[in-house]
Amino acid sequence: MNAKIIDGRKLAEATRTEIAEGVAALKRDCGVTPGLAVVLVGDNPASVSYVTAKAKACRETGMLSREIRMPADAREPEVLAQVKALDDDPAIHGILVQLPLPAGISEKNVIDAISPEKDVDGFTPVNVGRMVIGDRCFLPCTPHGILKLIEVSGMDVSGRHVVVVGRSNIVGKPMAMLLARKGRCANATVTLCHTGTPDISVHTRMADVVVVAAGRPGTLTGDMLKPGAVVIDVGVNRVPDASKPKGYRLCGDADFNSCAEVASAITPVPGGVGPMTITMLLWNTLEAARRIVGVQDAR
Amino acid sequence: MNAKIIDGRKLAEATRTEIAEGVAALKRDCGVTPGLAVVLVGDNPASVSYVTAKAKACRETGMLSREIRMPADAREPEVLAQVKALDDDPAIHGILVQLPLPAGISEKNVIDAISPEKDVDGFTPVNVGRMVIGDRCFLPCTPHGILKLIEVSGMDVSGRHVVVVGRSNIVGKPMAMLLARKGRCANATVTLCHTGTPDISVHTRMADVVVVAAGRPGTLTGDMLKPGAVVIDVGVNRVPDASKPKGYRLCGDADFNSCAEVASAITPVPGGVGPMTITMLLWNTLEAARRIVGVQDAR
Repeated sequence: MNAKIIDGRKLAEATRTEIAEGVAALKRDCGVTPGLAVVLVGDNPASVSYVTAKAKACRETGMLSREIRMPADAREPEVLAQVKALDDDPAIHGILVQLPLPAGISEKNVIDAISPEKDVDGFTPVNVGRMVIGDRCFLPCTPHGILKLIEVSGMDVSGRHVVVVGRSNIVGKPMAMLLARKGRCANATVTLCHTGTPDISVHTRMADVVVVAAGRPGTLTGDMLKPGAVVIDVGVNRVPDASKPKGYRLCGDADFNSCAEVASAITPVPGGVGPMTITMLLWNTLEAARRIVGVQDAR
Repeated sequence: MNAKIIDGRKLAEATRTEIAEGVAALKRDCGVTPGLAVVLVGDNPASVSYVTAKAKACRETGMLSREIRMPADAREPEVLAQVKALDDDPAIHGILVQLPLPAGISEKNVIDAISPEKDVDGFTPVNVGRMVIGDRCFLPCTPHGILKLIEVSGMDVSGRHVVVVGRSNIVGKPMAMLLARKGRCANATVTLCHTGTPDISVHTRMADVVVVAAGRPGTLTGDMLKPGAVVIDVGVNRVPDASKPKGYRLCGDADFNSCAEVASAITPVPGGVGPMTITMLLWNTLEAARRIVGVQDAR
């Protein structure tokens, strides 16, 4: 194996230490404890584990965490009323609604009920628009974490070619926009590939960095890379594995072994993008509290 | 010359006939005349000519047009008050503020004062965000017109590679997002190049379609194209020309003659993208009036 492993857990830990210091300072100087509310409707096992991890990470940095669990048969008006109540609650600075929501509840309506000032996921149209335009906003957590991971990989993306595979609203589209903008950790030429691309390897072979967020194991293999490329693997897939206690193991969208032979650096799954996603959620929540209090933006 | 000329004037005329029919139907069926307000601050000659062209095109389709001219030394609160008044005026369905604004007036603050329902330029953060997410919105006029031009060129961009040169908020970024989304006149693999790209020809030579919106004559030449590519030229540049009555002529960002030798189709400047930009503004204004009245969206 040639590639350096980009350690998302280590970077997350260092960043969370920095966040915890910010939380402590805000408490000390302003008497304000940043508060994050996480709303979970139903009991999808993956969602439960995400929500639990987010709430735990939140408390570990000294923030207030509030978990709202609603039954799978909750109706949309009830969910909207809950979000509105959190939006009006001065102890809560950030609101996250765990997706997907059960069938019959409009994700759009629920997300739209969060005011932009508390939208720490960066999913509301106003935040997305501000991000694209370049106004102050909350950056969506996964792409934001990826920018940090690329930075620690040692790759300066300015003037380089980045290929993003996957066009989701949560990762692919904002990732492309953020990497192409002017400024630090950006200014890259960006190609956005997706399920409509006949042969993504034509593009990935030209790339200095490949961000793969396709939701399918084996989307990227070593023969599709230019030697020395950096690989950021956003996929979290469960593949059956009888040798594991749970009967499955996690893997990314990249074939780790073959990619690690060709790449100069690669994020593992688990332990790469995932920890940074949660970390940037905490970052945004601290930032939301600072803005509401009127403390200078740290960035 | 090999390339077919994509006639923006002809397409604009056909589309405006369709819009005029829609305006007439809305008047007849609902008693409502769509109204567009155009706000111009100062007397920048290019802006004056754009505003005049927009107001004239508006009246020609049977819509109400209102031109608000403010002096170059108008202060921001005055401009904001004017925009707010139009926003509250039920006779006005679309508001356009001609950019750029004089120094000292924040374009962000003025644009943000337009409610998304009357933002027929598609420049407010909410509209930009909705566009990226895929919600119902007003598409920005230039990229929207370009989608129509590509369509009449005979090129189906689905599965093809489009290279967009230029990352402006008005053209490049929304163009990339619109072409990459799922659906008709879209589903393309998109590369976004810009001033930070060391050599755009590496990318343009791979492209089935090149959209050039760099604001610089000669950005694209024939040797930078794959034979048979479609070229959409968004540039409107004034170059000195003593043989012309005004002392200048207009040209695009593409070197027309060399590109037309290699491309299969190309938009001229003038007479390409420009007429379609104004046309899609009228389209959005009709659409805004329909939505306020509650008539079914035609698209």
